[in-house]
Amino acid sequence: MPQAVAGPEIERLIQLLARMPGLGPRSARRAALQLIKKRDTLLGPLADAMRVAAERIVVCHACGNVDTSDPCTICRDAARDPSTLVVVEDVSDLWALERSGAVQARYHVLGGVLSALDGVRPEHLNIASLVERASDPAVKEIILALNATVDGQTTAHYVTESIRRLDLKVTRLAHGVPVGGELDYLDEGTLMAAIRSRTAF
Amino acid sequence: MPQAVAGPEIERLIQLLARMPGLGPRSARRAALQLIKKRDTLLGPLADAMRVAAERIVVCHACGNVDTSDPCTICRDAARDPSTLVVVEDVSDLWALERSGAVQARYHVLGGVLSALDGVRPEHLNIASLVERASDPAVKEIILALNATVDGQTTAHYVTESIRRLDLKVTRLAHGVPVGGELDYLDEGTLMAAIRSRTAF
Repeated sequence: MPQAVAGPEIERLIQLLARMPGLGPRSARRAALQLIKKRDTLLGPLADAMRVAAERIVVCHACGNVDTSDPCTICRDAARDPSTLVVVEDVSDLWALERSGAVQARYHVLGGVLSALDGVRPEHLNIASLVERASDPAVKEIILALNATVDGQTTAHYVTESIRRLDLKVTRLAHGVPVGGELDYLDEGTLMAAIRSRTAF
Repeated sequence: MPQAVAGPEIERLIQLLARMPGLGPRSARRAALQLIKKRDTLLGPLADAMRVAAERIVVCHACGNVDTSDPCTICRDAARDPSTLVVVEDVSDLWALERSGAVQARYHVLGGVLSALDGVRPEHLNIASLVERASDPAVKEIILALNATVDGQTTAHYVTESIRRLDLKVTRLAHGVPVGGELDYLDEGTLMAAIRSRTAF
């Protein structure tokens, strides 16, 4: 811990800021100072927004999304395609897909991926609730939008096995060259997948 | 502005987080999600710490430091050498010097440096109050601990001129090789200064 150079209130703010992702001890000090300088325009409003978030945000019992209502806004949205469930690892992935606007369906947040190394087993993830939701006759397709990592793919296989008896269409995201990506910077696996799944031009 | 994918409370939190130094729109989203996941251990306490800081932190009228008391803890500290004033650009520099423990004196925060480009003129900085403090007969030395940039050095010259009639000892930080630094990575100016100010071994 660095030597305390400011009052205890400022030190506490710095220490808490340093625990935020993306901020270390040094950048936390800089952030604290900036916040103090922008007391009325940033520090006060941010304190209020955090207080509101801490008090009002809940986890959707259906899909695992975070929102101020349960079921969440997406689960309550009648315009969503009820026949498709998009399985994601984390809420951040849900947000990423929503930003893209690529799919107008509902989600299921697993809350992680299976990992022998980290001791994450199926019972630690929201897989049982996924099987239950997928058993709804309205559901026809499960899109596995999991990260293209070893753990992500292991999890995809496990989920597929778990819902095999439901006889649903199970799909995964396509592999290929990212839009705007340069071939020179891509790994062999991606290039291999992009060639293998080439499409007519 | 990215498309809103979460409720308005979360979006507002993300937008405010994105205005913090060191966080962009993408890392603000990640930070918001981490904060929500650590609601009780981080989000709540951070909201409280920010609220306390927003309400209690004041700028020391004497030196320009930020603290919960005015005069600040350093200005009230009777153990500090009253004969020396350390002139710094910003509170962050004051904190850096305090962390180093290099000097047990009081500070004077200019609140910036002169800059023709940014339109920062002497009247925008706490120079008049420095001249006033330096006029105290107890003060014998002014240490100019300003950044070794063009603007920092311009400001150092201006400050020196402003207090010349007081006939004080005016010093500046030494230039040289940073402790732990590798010569190969240093610029020519620093190496030149280090050679010129070489000391007996």
